[in-house]
Amino acid sequence: MPRAITAFSNPLVKDVRALREKKGRRRQGMFIAEGLRILTEAREAGRLPAILFYAAGTSHPLLDALVAEVEAAHGDVIETNADILHKLSGKENPQTVLGVYRAFDTSLEVIDRSAAPLWIVAQALRDPGNLGTILRTGDAVGAGGLILVDDCVDPFSVEAVRASMGALFTQPIAMASWHDFVPWLRSAKGELIGTSLNTDRDYQEPRYGKPAFLLVGNEAQGLPEAYEAECDTLVKIPMLGKADSLNAAVATAVVAYEIINQWRR
Amino acid sequence: MPRAITAFSNPLVKDVRALREKKGRRRQGMFIAEGLRILTEAREAGRLPAILFYAAGTSHPLLDALVAEVEAAHGDVIETNADILHKLSGKENPQTVLGVYRAFDTSLEVIDRSAAPLWIVAQALRDPGNLGTILRTGDAVGAGGLILVDDCVDPFSVEAVRASMGALFTQPIAMASWHDFVPWLRSAKGELIGTSLNTDRDYQEPRYGKPAFLLVGNEAQGLPEAYEAECDTLVKIPMLGKADSLNAAVATAVVAYEIINQWRR
Repeated sequence: MPRAITAFSNPLVKDVRALREKKGRRRQGMFIAEGLRILTEAREAGRLPAILFYAAGTSHPLLDALVAEVEAAHGDVIETNADILHKLSGKENPQTVLGVYRAFDTSLEVIDRSAAPLWIVAQALRDPGNLGTILRTGDAVGAGGLILVDDCVDPFSVEAVRASMGALFTQPIAMASWHDFVPWLRSAKGELIGTSLNTDRDYQEPRYGKPAFLLVGNEAQGLPEAYEAECDTLVKIPMLGKADSLNAAVATAVVAYEIINQWRR
Repeated sequence: MPRAITAFSNPLVKDVRALREKKGRRRQGMFIAEGLRILTEAREAGRLPAILFYAAGTSHPLLDALVAEVEAAHGDVIETNADILHKLSGKENPQTVLGVYRAFDTSLEVIDRSAAPLWIVAQALRDPGNLGTILRTGDAVGAGGLILVDDCVDPFSVEAVRASMGALFTQPIAMASWHDFVPWLRSAKGELIGTSLNTDRDYQEPRYGKPAFLLVGNEAQGLPEAYEAECDTLVKIPMLGKADSLNAAVATAVVAYEIINQWRR
């Protein structure tokens, strides 16, 4: 049976609210996802929330399925109201369903490179929307997962989870320093492909091998020189306009689709 | 000579602050762009701010160039401080340079379809980051500009301007209802290309003609059925994963690059 929480002073409300900040997520090892669509994607991927909040009066078969599975797994199901959900999510018009999940293992060991022909690697990515969008793209192109190198924005931030549209739950994520990533990469077969402005090689020219590791750099700086030097293949996307760069998530998608288009032929 | 403003009570500070809201932009017919990089892109595109704010002590040759041109055009150059810039921008760490620009003419008459082979059309786009990112992509693919159909988010919002990275100043923008857009489109040559989940036709299959009008739908709903029916070519991007959609700006870029890649061959 769901229990009810309607008091702002409830300590659980305070705990969950703290998950909007990285510090809170670190301390509790938990994160928030919002919305029935994303929570259903998560459920279908075998990920259930430890705590499920929903607004009293919400009625949807997908919510019923979620409640049943969370209860069967001995999770905490809480009926609450729009005010509490507003407080938890920080949004003017909060979703009526919110889940609190245990953070995943993000060590390099979660990456089984034989499981997929394409992997995305992001370096020092700063924008949570870009990170979530890259996860979503990763799902669409059949990537095996996302490897975050160096100091990237937290993939469990509310904005990243939202932008991923559920792909956070289906795309394995690893975090590693460049120092640890390179030996791991070189311990087995794999082609490291970087996008850069410092090359004349068009991204449609190479024939990409499997498994491919597509490396995208920081939004403002791009890839450090030493990282570009480590790449097996360095390519540029043609720019026909006045500026010389694309949004990082857009650039990732353009090259990722070129890679899988070659393999589809 | 720049004049100095350091008082929060200055009426100009209040006016500029109001430009962060759509209501204020509508009333004043002005908008804000932030950061020396974007203001320089604007200057190079022949767009100078009516009012230029910069933090006292900021020193950069590009700022000098900007100040000189704004003064030569009898614009208002204002030396201020970080606190005022924080108040104007609403950001914790504001840029040290901020420009206030006159909003552009956004009638369909600004679109000269003979000026470019590719145009992007967005319908009921809701996210300012997506809109700005699409402008930035439009610049990169050599698009002639962006046509916003139906009720789209304001392209002059602070977030859209920021995400465009200056492309707001180089890509002509028109706003029109679908009712007005279709007769305009059909009054001359042009292929309307829609992306949709309701087709099996792969986006790499058609040979795209010029001028191409690439139509992208609302983030949550996609294109209305009647709009899809109006398209000359309806294509889908293959999705190899568990979800069935891409971020709207990403989908736009993937198809736009396919179109120009065909033309580059």
